[in-house]
Amino acid sequence: MAKRSTAETARPGTKSAADELVPRLAPLRAAWKAPAKARHFYVPASDRTVHWGYFSKHLKPIVEIASGDFLTLECLTHAAGDDPERMIAGDPGVESIYRWTEDGKTVDRRGAGPMDAPNGAGAGAGVHILTGPIGVRGAEPGDVLEVRILDMVPRPSGNPRHRGKTFGTNMAAHWGFHYHDLIEEPKPREVITIYEVEGRGGSGWARPLYNYRWGPVTDPNGVTHTLYDYPGLLMNPADFHPKRGVLKGVRVPLRPHFGVMGVAPAEADMVSSVPPHYAGGNVDDWRIGKGGTMYYPVSVPGALLSVGDPHAAQGDSELCGTAVESSWTGQFRVVLHKRAGIRATSPLAGLDGPLLETKDAWVVHGFSYPRFLTELGPNAQTEIGKRSSVDLAMRDAFRKMRGFLMRTQGLSEDEAISLISIAVDFGVTQVVDANWGVHATLKKKLFAKA
Amino acid sequence: MAKRSTAETARPGTKSAADELVPRLAPLRAAWKAPAKARHFYVPASDRTVHWGYFSKHLKPIVEIASGDFLTLECLTHAAGDDPERMIAGDPGVESIYRWTEDGKTVDRRGAGPMDAPNGAGAGAGVHILTGPIGVRGAEPGDVLEVRILDMVPRPSGNPRHRGKTFGTNMAAHWGFHYHDLIEEPKPREVITIYEVEGRGGSGWARPLYNYRWGPVTDPNGVTHTLYDYPGLLMNPADFHPKRGVLKGVRVPLRPHFGVMGVAPAEADMVSSVPPHYAGGNVDDWRIGKGGTMYYPVSVPGALLSVGDPHAAQGDSELCGTAVESSWTGQFRVVLHKRAGIRATSPLAGLDGPLLETKDAWVVHGFSYPRFLTELGPNAQTEIGKRSSVDLAMRDAFRKMRGFLMRTQGLSEDEAISLISIAVDFGVTQVVDANWGVHATLKKKLFAKA
Repeated sequence: MAKRSTAETARPGTKSAADELVPRLAPLRAAWKAPAKARHFYVPASDRTVHWGYFSKHLKPIVEIASGDFLTLECLTHAAGDDPERMIAGDPGVESIYRWTEDGKTVDRRGAGPMDAPNGAGAGAGVHILTGPIGVRGAEPGDVLEVRILDMVPRPSGNPRHRGKTFGTNMAAHWGFHYHDLIEEPKPREVITIYEVEGRGGSGWARPLYNYRWGPVTDPNGVTHTLYDYPGLLMNPADFHPKRGVLKGVRVPLRPHFGVMGVAPAEADMVSSVPPHYAGGNVDDWRIGKGGTMYYPVSVPGALLSVGDPHAAQGDSELCGTAVESSWTGQFRVVLHKRAGIRATSPLAGLDGPLLETKDAWVVHGFSYPRFLTELGPNAQTEIGKRSSVDLAMRDAFRKMRGFLMRTQGLSEDEAISLISIAVDFGVTQVVDANWGVHATLKKKLFAKA
Repeated sequence: MAKRSTAETARPGTKSAADELVPRLAPLRAAWKAPAKARHFYVPASDRTVHWGYFSKHLKPIVEIASGDFLTLECLTHAAGDDPERMIAGDPGVESIYRWTEDGKTVDRRGAGPMDAPNGAGAGAGVHILTGPIGVRGAEPGDVLEVRILDMVPRPSGNPRHRGKTFGTNMAAHWGFHYHDLIEEPKPREVITIYEVEGRGGSGWARPLYNYRWGPVTDPNGVTHTLYDYPGLLMNPADFHPKRGVLKGVRVPLRPHFGVMGVAPAEADMVSSVPPHYAGGNVDDWRIGKGGTMYYPVSVPGALLSVGDPHAAQGDSELCGTAVESSWTGQFRVVLHKRAGIRATSPLAGLDGPLLETKDAWVVHGFSYPRFLTELGPNAQTEIGKRSSVDLAMRDAFRKMRGFLMRTQGLSEDEAISLISIAVDFGVTQVVDANWGVHATLKKKLFAKA
């Protein structure tokens, strides 16, 4: 069994506790300057600690924490099957999740769809491997959950042939913005590009290794997939005439972040992990990385926090459907804000969507349909994919930023609107997650009373 | 007559040549390290050097330059009437343009509309005061015009009571994204906020002074405007119960830029200055400031470059309809690239829209309808306002960025699309200029061969 490096240092020659693949209490790290009563839970990624492709209020927490506790969560990309030799082989945690033979899978359900769907259990209606859920003691609907991202560490390959290296994959997929708008033949097509990830952000880079045109793929159950319509398919890139030397000389600055992070929504039993919404989920804002703090409105008892879909790099829009999908481990501190303790002028008062705070800015996230589960009727989870619109997401982001300014700064509507126009930046978060996103960034220095 | 400071230093006690209010040859500045044969034209803003609210291929150039020449262009905001005491009074150039009595105006036509429109000559179909046009010797359709912005200097108030200060105005106007989506009464409403501009960018700030709810206003011709539907109306803020102390403690970092810059389009005789398009115009990207270089496809002989609509600060989206509208003087160098001399892999090859180059990035500009004058039929200039869409602008920006990458970097479509998804940022340029905009930013360091 190859030894993995993780955010927890495993001493050579000793058995790493993380290899037990179940959550455990772990020592607090000195850098955290944690209060004595705080605890630190280490959660390795394994078939016992993840759910695949969905959020659900009915999931039993894999660990229960108290407000103020620390978490290390190993988070895996759901696209490691694009190059299993680099991203699965030799890593017991990853292998435990991806195992799939004609006798079945270790994690059978992938997605919120029916278990007898023709393309596989869960129908791939939702694709992300999510670590969790984490239960938060005392969390109730109306509270706000604060999740601070203290650090992110790339997960090295478990394969001795690639020792010390980390890899990622970008899929130009059928849900991409470009898919029906291609100019080169054959049209349409899905394309995988494999990247090597060097460093940890800041000075780190992703470098392209090779690409291949995907599919069709027959899975161990004998189902042939002509589209990349089910997560965790195991490819042999050599079958697809991989092309080396692509994007020659290009290096992409890392922006490590978690594509999916959020709490379980109350409105449905099983919710696809693809469309983001008021309770977070697949927000895909690359600013949700180290040093960032997310705030989520709690809508079910215990909050049920899940994290996954780590990305090494992504542009605003995530145009082709994915980022540099890559496995990373995150260190977090989680703080529960009880509704009764939130002041009326707090950024958390009446919180109606995933809110990001960074050192320099506040970022609100608008969506085409922020509460699509209630807005779009009984078939909301399929309807949402037909109603995607940047225009609507822009409208939602505007309203959220106006509300944020009026509430937290005590501004009149006229003041808020003038300030938004001259100082707030609206960007296209993503146009590929069914419920499209626009984010609005408000710099804190506007209010520096210098 | 109060003396103005301009980018050209006027020696105290001497008559400034700039005060003659017509273009003149001026000395080259040492900082430019200009070749000996290059010339420098200084163009003061006056009723003899501007056109108001439109581009037209039929305008006679106010000056003709050669490729490589330098220009200083005084550019005025069209919204100085929001506080004439601070932004018009005592400045002979500004006064010469804004003069409007019951006997008429010095600049009668404001906009591309009919001269007998009920709301005023030109119908306010286009609003910006544009300095120019500048003719470029030898420019022909198919060539590319490069316009480097060397510096931007704020224009101080000509009023001795406000000596040394510069002001700007933000109008939350009826064309704003917020206008039909207000929450406070009275609804709807148009609101002016006056700002003081301190510094020149970088460390400079805009600070709010006061605001007022606009209108109705009766102009010197006896026409009552219940909406802000015509540019250059002269307000007396005191008539509107101005509110001081708004946005208390707020200061907005300056982002000086030219909202409107571009060449005359060939497709129509008179083109409103409001919708941006393939030949530039009202692009309203705040990155088009000092240090930036714009490239425009030339579509009429002489190119006919015009510049105006200076902004002291603006957020991506320009949400309420305007920025901090403020008068600034720009220093430029203009270079003509003949079509025959443009290599196939050049960023300028097949240029199909306004392209920005900064020190660190390339920025392409997408619009709902990049060639709306031909795309939307005989009533294109009114149709465009009914078809605004961020979704369409996003599509155009994607296509332009893909083309840029394939052409300039020799990438396959697959390579370009992967790179866009993981490294290119799409932002909402504006949702208020009839033809809405999305820009895509490509960092040069992706290609650093380090």
